[in-house]
Amino acid sequence: MALKGTMVIGQSGGPTAVVNASLAGAVLEAKRHPEIEAIYGSLGGILGIIHEDMIDLGRERLEVIEGLRSTPSAILGSCRYKLSNEDYERILAVFRAHDIRYFFYVGGNDSMDTTHRLGQLAADRKYRLVVMGIPKTVDNDLAHTDHCPGYGSAARFTALSVRDAGRDSEALSNMGRIKIMEIMGRNAGWLTAASALARENPEDAPHLIYVPERPLNTDRFLEDVQRTYERRGHAVVAVCEGVKDENGNALAESRLPIDVDAFGHGQAGGVADVLCRLVKDRLDLSARFDKAGTIQRVFMATASPVDVQEAALVGEMAVHHAVKGVSDRMVTLERVADEPYRCTTGLVELAKVANLERPLPDEFLSPSGNDVTEAFIRYAAPLLGGPLPPYARLAKHPVARRVAG
Amino acid sequence: MALKGTMVIGQSGGPTAVVNASLAGAVLEAKRHPEIEAIYGSLGGILGIIHEDMIDLGRERLEVIEGLRSTPSAILGSCRYKLSNEDYERILAVFRAHDIRYFFYVGGNDSMDTTHRLGQLAADRKYRLVVMGIPKTVDNDLAHTDHCPGYGSAARFTALSVRDAGRDSEALSNMGRIKIMEIMGRNAGWLTAASALARENPEDAPHLIYVPERPLNTDRFLEDVQRTYERRGHAVVAVCEGVKDENGNALAESRLPIDVDAFGHGQAGGVADVLCRLVKDRLDLSARFDKAGTIQRVFMATASPVDVQEAALVGEMAVHHAVKGVSDRMVTLERVADEPYRCTTGLVELAKVANLERPLPDEFLSPSGNDVTEAFIRYAAPLLGGPLPPYARLAKHPVARRVAG
Repeated sequence: MALKGTMVIGQSGGPTAVVNASLAGAVLEAKRHPEIEAIYGSLGGILGIIHEDMIDLGRERLEVIEGLRSTPSAILGSCRYKLSNEDYERILAVFRAHDIRYFFYVGGNDSMDTTHRLGQLAADRKYRLVVMGIPKTVDNDLAHTDHCPGYGSAARFTALSVRDAGRDSEALSNMGRIKIMEIMGRNAGWLTAASALARENPEDAPHLIYVPERPLNTDRFLEDVQRTYERRGHAVVAVCEGVKDENGNALAESRLPIDVDAFGHGQAGGVADVLCRLVKDRLDLSARFDKAGTIQRVFMATASPVDVQEAALVGEMAVHHAVKGVSDRMVTLERVADEPYRCTTGLVELAKVANLERPLPDEFLSPSGNDVTEAFIRYAAPLLGGPLPPYARLAKHPVARRVAG
Repeated sequence: MALKGTMVIGQSGGPTAVVNASLAGAVLEAKRHPEIEAIYGSLGGILGIIHEDMIDLGRERLEVIEGLRSTPSAILGSCRYKLSNEDYERILAVFRAHDIRYFFYVGGNDSMDTTHRLGQLAADRKYRLVVMGIPKTVDNDLAHTDHCPGYGSAARFTALSVRDAGRDSEALSNMGRIKIMEIMGRNAGWLTAASALARENPEDAPHLIYVPERPLNTDRFLEDVQRTYERRGHAVVAVCEGVKDENGNALAESRLPIDVDAFGHGQAGGVADVLCRLVKDRLDLSARFDKAGTIQRVFMATASPVDVQEAALVGEMAVHHAVKGVSDRMVTLERVADEPYRCTTGLVELAKVANLERPLPDEFLSPSGNDVTEAFIRYAAPLLGGPLPPYARLAKHPVARRVAG
């Protein structure tokens, strides 16, 4: 017999364009199950439970819940907070007081760890509780899932913006500029790799791609840039904010106390600026950078329709399985086919994804260390939810010269 | 009787999302006039004429010309190049050799100056030549036109990205971060001001807006940020890359030889980084910046339909007037009404726009020096080509507390 009681759902970590779609999927599914007697939302991630700062999502108008599918960022508020043992006890006390029997957490690997521990504590204390993880991260670095909701939309924005900024750089190629585009990703280059989807032809931007999975040797980087510049008159470089040098140290990371988060991670970012200075100093070439920053992860206007739909689906399936008694699992996405793209969902034990990071596999990275492979393109393309709109290409019939010199 | 001969068109300065729409408008109109015997495109701005690097646009397929309306950046290539007296003579020689009688230049105020001088030289040398300027700049700083093609699309991207990044910052407000968004604009804050269109409610991002028209006093800036932070738990700041201090010096500008262009302008940009450091050092608050850079000016996926249509129109009208014998003019946009928005075109002497910059007028800037006025909103809103898509807002019915502490 299904467990009766209240459910609470929270959103964690960095917001995405589609994390509210997951919320919509979970809430709408929960409304179909009478055993879920109330649907609470925790404000500010797990902190909302600790502070008893919760709202009654069941009373929200249906149009508002539906509207979450096209509303970016985390509408419940999010956090990056590492729980103490005391916090876990407090959460359990809040759950008991409100008869909360279902806990859903939308987040990345840190959040899956939190969810798993909470389930374990409840089991230890003989408190019947179902805990389920709903995947979310533009970094696409969760293990045991084909991909992560949030990634497809961020990848689409990355491809579109690198394509357009690449055309901008090409138009000014007589100025011989090097353009460096800084893409999000602390330890995994999935999003940076997606910049390759900007290319319609092999000579299109990005001309060079650097990800944290391959150490960045600055001499080799400068050679790559110089060679591209000589061939094309300009160069567009996509670089992951988290690239490391050969000693495994981040090329640019702030470890100022103000920049270190609760999990001990420093602030990535600034690498494009570092590389621009290097290009100016060592190659005497003009260099500028674009760093779309958080815009990349939440930009809604170009969200991938596939991503929106899958984000809602994983939310829905988490509730679907939970009311059947499944617990301590994260919903996964399982690809059935690339073309036409088909995807279904599965389940994985939370302990298997908790605190694990999935880097880009070798088969997705070219041996040159500065590009991706066709296998990656096949993997990532369907997640963008359709091809990029086509751009005009002129035939450029030349006019014969008539003047000397 | 209309002047018979070849026309040449070039694109100049920083690319935009719609500068190819102007090209399409001009080419399609030219095809309607038999006195225009051939339609050439100059590759790389004016440099294409100097180097006789021209293409026959009349031979391009019609679908390709139509496709230019949805293709960003400058498809003919652009330049930032200051012509020497020798260059002007050379251009006239090329014009004579190819019987070029119509010159159209799509660009900003430097380009209008170039176009004007070319017309004057031709007149001095008794060479019959019609020269027309087609306005283009995301900076929106051309005089004697209500607004500039390119601005509406860049403004729409700015509003969308500040809105979404603002929601991102709000979701993580328990982390108390200051987010600084660097917006393009060397001397004029039109694009930065457009960030205000991100707001649905007064408390929405951006909370503070700084433009070059008002000197930025760092102490006042820090007070503004601190006050906003205390009220909201976070702050989203839109700052123009070209903001100046009280002595009129750019807060962040590189004057390295490699960064100074042909017109003697240094490289603006870097101000968000400077302000982030200031916030960290002096307020001990976490601060990060987004700098979409060139993405802002060319991002096509969210181009303003009004902007695309008007960009095509000014190209079309330039040719329309030219074949009637009008010369030495730039096509302007003249607003007829705000709501419903209606706009027509006019003409202005090139000499009146050449090398002039139109800053934001006082009536568009709030006395506080850190925001825009309702008058600016009324001015800018129609240029975005429609309201931003609505986002869901939860009613947030609170759940009553049941646990002590």
